Amino acid sequence: MKIKLSEIADLISGKVVGKPDIQISNLSNIQDAKIGDLTFLYMPSYLDFLKTTNASAVLIPPSFEKTNTELTYIEVDKPNLAFQKIINTYFKPNFNLKGVHQSANIAGTSSIAEDSALGMNVVIGENCNIGSSTKIYHNTVIMDNCTIGNNVLIFPNVTVRENTIIGNDVILHSGTVIGSDGFGYSPDENGVYHKIPQIGNVIIEDDVEIGSNVSIDRAAVGSTIIHKGVKLDNLVQIAHNVKVGENTVMSAQTGISGSVVIGKNCILAGQVGSVGHIEIADNVIVGAQSGISKGIKKSGTYFGSPAKEIKTTLRLEAHFRSLPKYAEKIKELERKLDRLESTNKIENQKGNN
Amino acid sequence: MKIKLSEIADLISGKVVGKPDIQISNLSNIQDAKIGDLTFLYMPSYLDFLKTTNASAVLIPPSFEKTNTELTYIEVDKPNLAFQKIINTYFKPNFNLKGVHQSANIAGTSSIAEDSALGMNVVIGENCNIGSSTKIYHNTVIMDNCTIGNNVLIFPNVTVRENTIIGNDVILHSGTVIGSDGFGYSPDENGVYHKIPQIGNVIIEDDVEIGSNVSIDRAAVGSTIIHKGVKLDNLVQIAHNVKVGENTVMSAQTGISGSVVIGKNCILAGQVGSVGHIEIADNVIVGAQSGISKGIKKSGTYFGSPAKEIKTTLRLEAHFRSLPKYAEKIKELERKLDRLESTNKIENQKGNN
Amino acid sequence: MKIKLSEIADLISGKVVGKPDIQISNLSNIQDAKIGDLTFLYMPSYLDFLKTTNASAVLIPPSFEKTNTELTYIEVDKPNLAFQKIINTYFKPNFNLKGVHQSANIAGTSSIAEDSALGMNVVIGENCNIGSSTKIYHNTVIMDNCTIGNNVLIFPNVTVRENTIIGNDVILHSGTVIGSDGFGYSPDENGVYHKIPQIGNVIIEDDVEIGSNVSIDRAAVGSTIIHKGVKLDNLVQIAHNVKVGENTVMSAQTGISGSVVIGKNCILAGQVGSVGHIEIADNVIVGAQSGISKGIKKSGTYFGSPAKEIKTTLRLEAHFRSLPKYAEKIKELERKLDRLESTNKIENQKGNN
Repeated sequence: MKIKLSEIADLISGKVVGKPDIQISNLSNIQDAKIGDLTFLYMPSYLDFLKTTNASAVLIPPSFEKTNTELTYIEVDKPNLAFQKIINTYFKPNFNLKGVHQSANIAGTSSIAEDSALGMNVVIGENCNIGSSTKIYHNTVIMDNCTIGNNVLIFPNVTVRENTIIGNDVILHSGTVIGSDGFGYSPDENGVYHKIPQIGNVIIEDDVEIGSNVSIDRAAVGSTIIHKGVKLDNLVQIAHNVKVGENTVMSAQTGISGSVVIGKNCILAGQVGSVGHIEIADNVIVGAQSGISKGIKKSGTYFGSPAKEIKTTLRLEAHFRSLPKYAEKIKELERKLDRLESTNKIENQKGNN
Repeated sequence: MKIKLSEIADLISGKVVGKPDIQISNLSNIQDAKIGDLTFLYMPSYLDFLKTTNASAVLIPPSFEKTNTELTYIEVDKPNLAFQKIINTYFKPNFNLKGVHQSANIAGTSSIAEDSALGMNVVIGENCNIGSSTKIYHNTVIMDNCTIGNNVLIFPNVTVRENTIIGNDVILHSGTVIGSDGFGYSPDENGVYHKIPQIGNVIIEDDVEIGSNVSIDRAAVGSTIIHKGVKLDNLVQIAHNVKVGENTVMSAQTGISGSVVIGKNCILAGQVGSVGHIEIADNVIVGAQSGISKGIKKSGTYFGSPAKEIKTTLRLEAHFRSLPKYAEKIKELERKLDRLESTNKIENQKGNN
Repeated sequence: MKIKLSEIADLISGKVVGKPDIQISNLSNIQDAKIGDLTFLYMPSYLDFLKTTNASAVLIPPSFEKTNTELTYIEVDKPNLAFQKIINTYFKPNFNLKGVHQSANIAGTSSIAEDSALGMNVVIGENCNIGSSTKIYHNTVIMDNCTIGNNVLIFPNVTVRENTIIGNDVILHSGTVIGSDGFGYSPDENGVYHKIPQIGNVIIEDDVEIGSNVSIDRAAVGSTIIHKGVKLDNLVQIAHNVKVGENTVMSAQTGISGSVVIGKNCILAGQVGSVGHIEIADNVIVGAQSGISKGIKKSGTYFGSPAKEIKTTLRLEAHFRSLPKYAEKIKELERKLDRLESTNKIENQKGNN
């Protein structure tokens, strides 16, 4: 595929600085771009790549200096958004699974919309209902009594356990498990753990995307709920009875303990952990590797293990780095004070004589 | 299903306070309960929900104040255990996989007890032996020379590698991998890593439950052993040659490095990590996100990265939070001392004059 | 299988101290060894096991004291390397998958070398090319347009997404996902996240081994690249557009954020996290649970969260442990200074009188 640069500029209402007639055959990032590629730049820290990139054209904010005059530019306010529009218009991946493969196995009590597709060896349990334009890829298993909405995309090797409810426009990546049993036991007097059957389910609302190898446990009773618009990165752990608010995102390897209620529009960075049975307010941002040890009632940015307001953590970290200096100062004070004390003794003795 | 509350009270030897004749149709947690639901309360921090819950009845310890007089209560000493008994009696999930599906593939040299069941596309390798009342769900793969006991429940998309031995009453959740190769290499003088074949196996004893997307590596030589009654949460990593003692539990995303020997009845919270080649005593509790950097010889509670006795970590954390105050005090001391020194000089000069 | 000890000693150019004629039937670690087993010892901390091991023979460095005179030893400079040679010669596991199983499904546009093997229910998408001596185990899915080299070993339940390129002599363990979508969204003014299609791919070069339940995301645009000789342990997360340099190794549960470029011959221990968009030099070692918060320009050993040069972190940690002492000293200084001040006042008054 070749697209004229001026056509792309029109699409994104950008202004060409350079040659509007060059042909774009692919998109790339600025470091790896080859001739014929269009790329984009929006982080000032990547400005140096302008000198070395092999790209044919670069989307760039008007305010950035176009240091390499041999390149062609499209000036546009938000290059990353414009780049996304270009991808969506010309380069969007096409998951064209069609029909129900003969090796797929659908229980007689389940129904699937005619225009949905099941890959090879897909298993659909009893009493399931699968909406239209939904694609379920190879070797994925949907257990009994699941409801899956329209335009859902499930990649290979996913497991959806019984009684799960999935909305519309949801994406589940490979290796992910929805509805595994919550981690619930009661220990007896001998320290032996007895399983508490986990009889709740998982509800995943519309527009949710869940990365690969994620584990979302079913509720002990009631529902684990992933609300509308939530995005979870790979290898995230969501324990039983957690509720994740609308448009909250979590980066990879973050883990949320049981019964936590997370607000809307939160951002949890990677490898964050949270204790169980707490609430986190709306619009809370938590830095990477933080350990949330108690409820967060106020929107804001938190960081550290245990997590504190980020200002506090950064101030404490600065003090922490100053510890050798403080230790030296304490020694110095001790020396001075000793000196002063002994001088004083002498002087006072003199004075008293 | 509807059950009379008095029947439930009899089952758990509880005392009804309110209406013994109401019908219970479902179980729920106190926040999400609907009319007709029975719920329970045992953490004082949840007492406020008594005022807002829609539940029809609540299990409650006799000592708790029954602040909402419109609710019906069953007083019982341990509401969580009683609730579990109710689940087990009336609401226990029924994994009723039956027979060997025609798409399952069992090597001719393997044997499966008659009353065990294999789901669709299950693969059983050579020389395997599978006990009675065992259920292996769809798309799970058991490789060669595995022994699996009685009443084992394996969910979809599990992989059990060759030579694994699994006891009775074991549960393996979806996405879990038992017996992947340990992470063993020897680097040569050029920094190239050469694989050390991992020729040991994994032994999982009776009554073990392993969450979803867990990785348990086979031993380099000998066995990685998960002893009786161990419970591992999702996304846990167990490296080669680890030994996990009886009734030890680990929360999600905890990782244990090679050759660690963990005692009995330990509790490792979430996202804990341990260095390799150490021993951890019986009855050790380790707080979330802790980093175990050396062996632990004494039972007790440990916390922090590196992990220390929890008292020590909490005391140090309190001092850490006081760092700005300490820094201020050091400055104040410096000021005072300077003042004192200069005053002294003047006074001493006076005195000496 | 039984092998005469002297034959093993010849293989590794070792010197027998004891009985050269004993027969070795198995290999084991020193703690678990049984009669007939050969084991090895190279860490001084394991020397005590010499007294209790049931092994028949032990590989040992000449410099170690052979405290148990009833054992037979083979003296050899690097017992671990010698042990590896013995495994490779006599005990190497044999993954003897053969042919293409009838339940495997290969798209008509794909080609597979004649001597490669596909297990049961394996799915190979359109336009794939699979080299010779490659073995792909049961229930693994390779999506469209993938190229897989020679002598590749893929265990069960792996997912390889479209457009992935895999070199020669690569091993992928079970549950691993190669090429899941990168975590890329753009939020609109309402805080709703819009997916940025991830149109790049993953390239895995020769001699790479990837553990179980690993997630490697495809690039947003361009390629996520795992260079030659890299070894990744279980449950590792590699985000979109990351580049991992030759012979770099990462232990379990480590996570690398988007667009990070890691040098050659690095070692990242377990549960390490890295922020995105940074570069890490060659020959960098990062301790367990560290949080890499900015680029690392100099080879060396780093540790802590945020990661610092290990010397700095250990010095700060020592100061941290001394905080109670420092707090005490500050109090003591305050007391002394107060005393001194009041003494001075009195003396000065005397002097002034």
